[in-house]
Amino acid sequence: MLSPRTPSSVFVARRRALAERSPTPALLAAGLPPARQYRANTYPFRAKSHFLYLVGEHIPGAALLVTRDRQILFVEPEADGDALWHGPRPSFEELRAAHAVDEVRALADVDAVLRDLGAPVATLPTEDARSAAWLSARLVRVIPASSGDKLEAGSPDEALAEAMIGLRLRHDEAAIEQLRAAGQASARAHLAGMRATRPGGTEAEVAGVMIGSLRREGFEDAYGPIVTIHGEVLHNEHHHGTLAAGDLLLADVGGETPEGFAGDITRTWPVSGTFSPTQRAIYDVVLAAQRAAVAKVRPGVRYREVHETAKRIIVEGLCHLGIFRGEPSGLLERGAAAIFFPHGIGHLIGLDVHDMEDLGDRAGYAPGRTRSKAFGDCYLRLDRDLEPGMAVTIEPGFYQVPAILRDARYVGAVGDDLRRDVLARYADVRGIRIEDDVLCTDGEPEVLTSLVPKDASEVEAAMRS
Amino acid sequence: MLSPRTPSSVFVARRRALAERSPTPALLAAGLPPARQYRANTYPFRAKSHFLYLVGEHIPGAALLVTRDRQILFVEPEADGDALWHGPRPSFEELRAAHAVDEVRALADVDAVLRDLGAPVATLPTEDARSAAWLSARLVRVIPASSGDKLEAGSPDEALAEAMIGLRLRHDEAAIEQLRAAGQASARAHLAGMRATRPGGTEAEVAGVMIGSLRREGFEDAYGPIVTIHGEVLHNEHHHGTLAAGDLLLADVGGETPEGFAGDITRTWPVSGTFSPTQRAIYDVVLAAQRAAVAKVRPGVRYREVHETAKRIIVEGLCHLGIFRGEPSGLLERGAAAIFFPHGIGHLIGLDVHDMEDLGDRAGYAPGRTRSKAFGDCYLRLDRDLEPGMAVTIEPGFYQVPAILRDARYVGAVGDDLRRDVLARYADVRGIRIEDDVLCTDGEPEVLTSLVPKDASEVEAAMRS
Repeated sequence: MLSPRTPSSVFVARRRALAERSPTPALLAAGLPPARQYRANTYPFRAKSHFLYLVGEHIPGAALLVTRDRQILFVEPEADGDALWHGPRPSFEELRAAHAVDEVRALADVDAVLRDLGAPVATLPTEDARSAAWLSARLVRVIPASSGDKLEAGSPDEALAEAMIGLRLRHDEAAIEQLRAAGQASARAHLAGMRATRPGGTEAEVAGVMIGSLRREGFEDAYGPIVTIHGEVLHNEHHHGTLAAGDLLLADVGGETPEGFAGDITRTWPVSGTFSPTQRAIYDVVLAAQRAAVAKVRPGVRYREVHETAKRIIVEGLCHLGIFRGEPSGLLERGAAAIFFPHGIGHLIGLDVHDMEDLGDRAGYAPGRTRSKAFGDCYLRLDRDLEPGMAVTIEPGFYQVPAILRDARYVGAVGDDLRRDVLARYADVRGIRIEDDVLCTDGEPEVLTSLVPKDASEVEAAMRS
Repeated sequence: MLSPRTPSSVFVARRRALAERSPTPALLAAGLPPARQYRANTYPFRAKSHFLYLVGEHIPGAALLVTRDRQILFVEPEADGDALWHGPRPSFEELRAAHAVDEVRALADVDAVLRDLGAPVATLPTEDARSAAWLSARLVRVIPASSGDKLEAGSPDEALAEAMIGLRLRHDEAAIEQLRAAGQASARAHLAGMRATRPGGTEAEVAGVMIGSLRREGFEDAYGPIVTIHGEVLHNEHHHGTLAAGDLLLADVGGETPEGFAGDITRTWPVSGTFSPTQRAIYDVVLAAQRAAVAKVRPGVRYREVHETAKRIIVEGLCHLGIFRGEPSGLLERGAAAIFFPHGIGHLIGLDVHDMEDLGDRAGYAPGRTRSKAFGDCYLRLDRDLEPGMAVTIEPGFYQVPAILRDARYVGAVGDDLRRDVLARYADVRGIRIEDDVLCTDGEPEVLTSLVPKDASEVEAAMRS
C-alpha cells in the first residue's frame, strides 16, 4: 500500500471542528453498497465522502453522530455466523480505540441516543435510497435521495452543509498527503498507459493497463475512466476502439486512495509515439493554456480568472495558427473559445473528484456568485477566490465537436473568422485535454500530478521508456 | 474484443419464446447506474440481466415491452446538447434495425402504449429503487425494490418469472458462446495472476494484474474479486495482505462479457511457486472432489448428488490423511464434511454469476424442493435435476475456519473423531478452493474454464511460465 494512513487524531480534530461550526448535532450515514444485479452481488462499497472525511474507513451501513461533547460511531453488530463468512471482526472497544471516538454502539441504539439528545439533528443529503430512508426514519422527516442544492434556507441541514464546506474547502495536511498519493498513483497509471499504447492495440487494452496499475497499488478508480481515440466525445466511457497510428489517445483516468481521496489526470498522446506537426501545434496551444492557468493558482485569484486565462491563450494560439482571424479580445467576446473549449477549466478536487458536488454549486460557487449563461462558461464548476489548501484541477482542451461546429448557436457570432479551410488541415486532432491536480499554497502552486510528463517531447520519450 | 457478438435474431427468438410462455405482456426495465457519491459520478452501468437476455445491450433507463405480437424498445430520446457530450447517438430507426424490434419509442410513450394494450402487464422485481419507482408508476401498483422470492402466488409477475426461468435455465447456443468467452477470459486472468505472484508481493498486486487482464480484453468483473492469503475467510474482498513464501493464495475472480455473461473461477496456488507437502496433500483431496463432481454433471443427475459426491470424497480424503478417524459414511451423517467444506458445491451460472438469484430460490430449486436445514447443506444454491444446456459451477473447498472449529454446534457431533493433533500438522493450509464452470451436455460435461490448470504440478508450472 503506497498510500499513507491518516492518524485517528486528524479525524478527531475534524469532528471537533465540525461540531464547533454546526449549530446542531449532525448524523451522517456511510451508505450501503448498491446491488449490481441481485442483492448479494454489489458494486464495491465506497462510503459517502462526508462520512469518510470524519471517519476514514468504509464501514457499510455505519453512521456517525457528532455533537459538541460526544462523537459516537454506530455500526451493525456482528450477527451470528458473520465470523464464519467474514472472519473475526473488531470488537466495539477495538473500533472505539482505532477511530478515537467517544463510543461505538449498535445501529439499533441510534433512536434512543437521538431521543436523549432532545435537540434537532442535522444531516446531509445522500444519493443512496436506502440511506435516505434510514435517515428519514431516524430523524422523523423526509431526507430525499437527491441532489443537495435543494437544502432549505436557514435549516439545520443547510447550516451543516455550510460547516462541512467550510472545512473541506481548504485541505488539512493529512488530506493533502492523500491527494499527493492519489496524484502520484494516477500519474503512474498514465505512464503505464503511455507505454502500453501501440498501433493496432485497443482502447480497452490501454484502459486495462491503467486500471490494473491503480488496483495493483490498492487504489480504486475515482471515476469512470475515459480512454478514447475520440477525445471530442467528452463523456466517452466506452473502450471499444482500435488504435491507428495517426490517432491521438485521450486518457482521463484517476485513482482513489483507500481513504477515498481522488486523483484526476488527463493526458493525450500519439498512438504512433510521435505527434504529427498539426497535432503538436494544437497540443502546444493547449499546453500553453494549461501552464498559464496552473501558474494562476495563487491565493486571492478568482478561479473564473484562471478559466479566462486559459480561454484567452487558446484563442490567441488558434489565431496564431490561422484557425481564427482577427483580434483575440473581440473573438473572445463573440464566444470563440467555447467553440473548441466548451467546458470549464476545472473544479475542486478532494474526497470527490468534483469535490462536494453532492451539495450542488454551494461548494463551488462563492456566496452571491452564480453560473454564467454563456455557452462554455456555464459549465464552469468553480468560482471562488482561491485560498491556500484548496485543490483544483486545471484541464483546458481543444476538441472538434461536430455538434458544435455545425450549429449556428455556437459558431454564428464568429462567422467567417473561423477559417474552416485552415481548420481542415488539423483534421487529425479530434480532441486534446491536458489536466493536472493543483494545490493552492501560500507561494508557488504545487502540482500534485507532476510525475507524469506533459511536454510533447517528454510524452513521446515516456512512451518509448 | 475477444467476446462474440450475439446476432439480433437470437434476441428476437428469445423475446418470442418469452411472449409464448408468459400469459400476459411483460415490461422489463434496464435500470440506471447507481451514484457512487454524487449523481454524476456513477458506478459503471450494468443493465439488469432479464433485460440483457432479451436485448443484449446496456441502455441506461431503457425498457422493453414484449407482447404476443409486438416487441417495443423504449429509450430516452436524445436531449438537446447530448450530441455535444456523448457524441452522435443512433436514431430510433437505427436502434430498431440493430435490435430487430418492431418499434423503438420514447420512454415517455410507455403509458400511452400500456393504456392501448388494456391488459394486465407483468414485470420482474428489481433492486434498483429508481427503476422500481418508475415501474410502479407505469403499472400503477407497487413494484418493491427488493428480492424476487416474494412474488405473489398466481400473479402475472410470478408467471413471468417462471417463464423467464424456463428460458434462462437451459442456455441457447449464443449464451453458451458467451459463457465460453467469459470462462476463457477469466482463465487468462488467473494465468496472469499466477505469473504475477511472488513472496513479498501483495494481494492487491495480484488482484490488479487479474482485473487488468480482464479489462484489457474488454471484460468487466462479474463480481467482487477475492484474492487473499486468508482463503478461510470466505467473503473476503479486501486486498490488504502481503504475500509470504509459505502462504497459499486463493483467487476467486471472474469476468463478464460485454453482453453480460459471467465467468467464475477459483484457483489456489502457493506463493513460493511450490506447494508444501501438507498443502499438496489437502489440495489433492479438494481436487479429487472437484474432478469427481465435474464428472457427475450429466443429464438427469440431481445437483444435490453432485454436492454429496464432493462431500464424500473430501471426508474420505481427510480420513486417509488421518484428520478424521472412523468410517466416512458415519462421519458424513454426523456433519463432518461441513466442518471443512461449509458451503454448497456450486450454483447456476449465466447472465448472473449466481444465475437468477434475483428471483430467490425459485430458479435454483426445483418445485417442491427446499433448502436443507443442516449446516453446510443449507447453503446449497441449486437443487435441480441437470439438463443439457444448464451451466453450473463446481467449487469444493477446504477451510480451517476458527469460528467453525471452536464451535460445538458444528464440530460436536464428530467429537474426537476430528483428530486435532493431526490437523495441527496442516496449519499451512488455511483455505483452498478449486472452481470451474461446467456445461451440462448430452454427453461429457464441457468445462468452460479449462484454459487454466488445476492439477497441482501444472499450477506450479504455470506460475513459472
